[in-house]
Amino acid sequence: MSRLRFRISISLDGFVAGPEQSVRHPLGIGGERLHHWATALAAWRGAHGMEGGEINASTAVMEESLVNIGATVMGRNMFGGHPGGWSTSEPWNGWWGDEPPFHHPVFVLTRHPRSPLVLGDTRFHFVTEGIHVALEQARAAAGGRDVALAGGAHAARQYLAAGLVDEMELHLVPILLGGGERLFDQLGDDLHGLSLVRTVATPAVVHLKFERLHGARGPLR
Amino acid sequence: MSRLRFRISISLDGFVAGPEQSVRHPLGIGGERLHHWATALAAWRGAHGMEGGEINASTAVMEESLVNIGATVMGRNMFGGHPGGWSTSEPWNGWWGDEPPFHHPVFVLTRHPRSPLVLGDTRFHFVTEGIHVALEQARAAAGGRDVALAGGAHAARQYLAAGLVDEMELHLVPILLGGGERLFDQLGDDLHGLSLVRTVATPAVVHLKFERLHGARGPLR
Repeated sequence: MSRLRFRISISLDGFVAGPEQSVRHPLGIGGERLHHWATALAAWRGAHGMEGGEINASTAVMEESLVNIGATVMGRNMFGGHPGGWSTSEPWNGWWGDEPPFHHPVFVLTRHPRSPLVLGDTRFHFVTEGIHVALEQARAAAGGRDVALAGGAHAARQYLAAGLVDEMELHLVPILLGGGERLFDQLGDDLHGLSLVRTVATPAVVHLKFERLHGARGPLR
Repeated sequence: MSRLRFRISISLDGFVAGPEQSVRHPLGIGGERLHHWATALAAWRGAHGMEGGEINASTAVMEESLVNIGATVMGRNMFGGHPGGWSTSEPWNGWWGDEPPFHHPVFVLTRHPRSPLVLGDTRFHFVTEGIHVALEQARAAAGGRDVALAGGAHAARQYLAAGLVDEMELHLVPILLGGGERLFDQLGDDLHGLSLVRTVATPAVVHLKFERLHGARGPLR
């Protein structure tokens, strides 16, 4: 069965983006500190067409997260930027330039209909019918492989609240951001059966892997 | 040098007590779930005069936290309960009954002067002159050993904000509480040199030990 796999970097104080997100600071003030552990890795750099980088205990976690993904779903904020940007004469085409690193279909949650966008070997589909339809379409496109939930926090919270996330990997970065966007907000006290199954630690990041236990399936599987 | 060592159990969503704290629910609704990992341990039960319990990877962490502590500082809320309770005819003597588990001097931050209270072999001192004086008095009483910062969150935040915490162990419990008291709030983005030095994980709790790095001492050592 195709699983919905969510991974995100989060600060010790619970933020997945810093304060004052903007086009200039898409990750918020200081938010790039959440990703230093990843961008330093050879495994990440290779997947993004760059050379060099470190090999450490995070390498296997990063490699695992890239395996067997056939499609990605993401929220409007993750795709990018400024409200109304799509209606300008220069349409917004995401943060990733001409060669996005996905290499598989990406389904973007939005309220604004738009034709698919092809950049390199990544095709972006824009889904206006909500999280369930986006996941169905992504599963169909994934051809039996898993679907990655790329964030941002708002989209992730919707999938978590609906009990649709099968695997959640939190990359807990031992820093404070002091403000920004929280992942766990308005979710109540229910992880919908997600239980901690593995921890991998380095001084720069602690990887906390959660899986939905057998018998605790989401409502719509 | 006597070090200030802080440890606390915290939920995945950042709460160290659940919502709606009261005399009936001193840990807030669901807050007791933060402590199941500890109260299940033989090491904790033995320190609290109880028999039985588990031995697992948390045991060494618990035992380490109990070693070389000569005094404890705690906030008014940790000592206990209801505002004004001390002025009733039945003075509030803490949550711990006639035999508190400290067995060393405890310094309680408060705005209400009160004579020392002796229960079993624990003497509670009530300090009205603020966090620095309480820490000085605790250090003097500790006789060269370390001082434990027992919480609650409000007192801990004051010591963290002042850069006075030398060691912080977060017992991260992989649950959501959905509300309550946050540890990391109003602290900005500054951990005052505290860096992650050790991680120990079980399915029930992930112990994250932070220490102040050499050269990053607090301002008042």
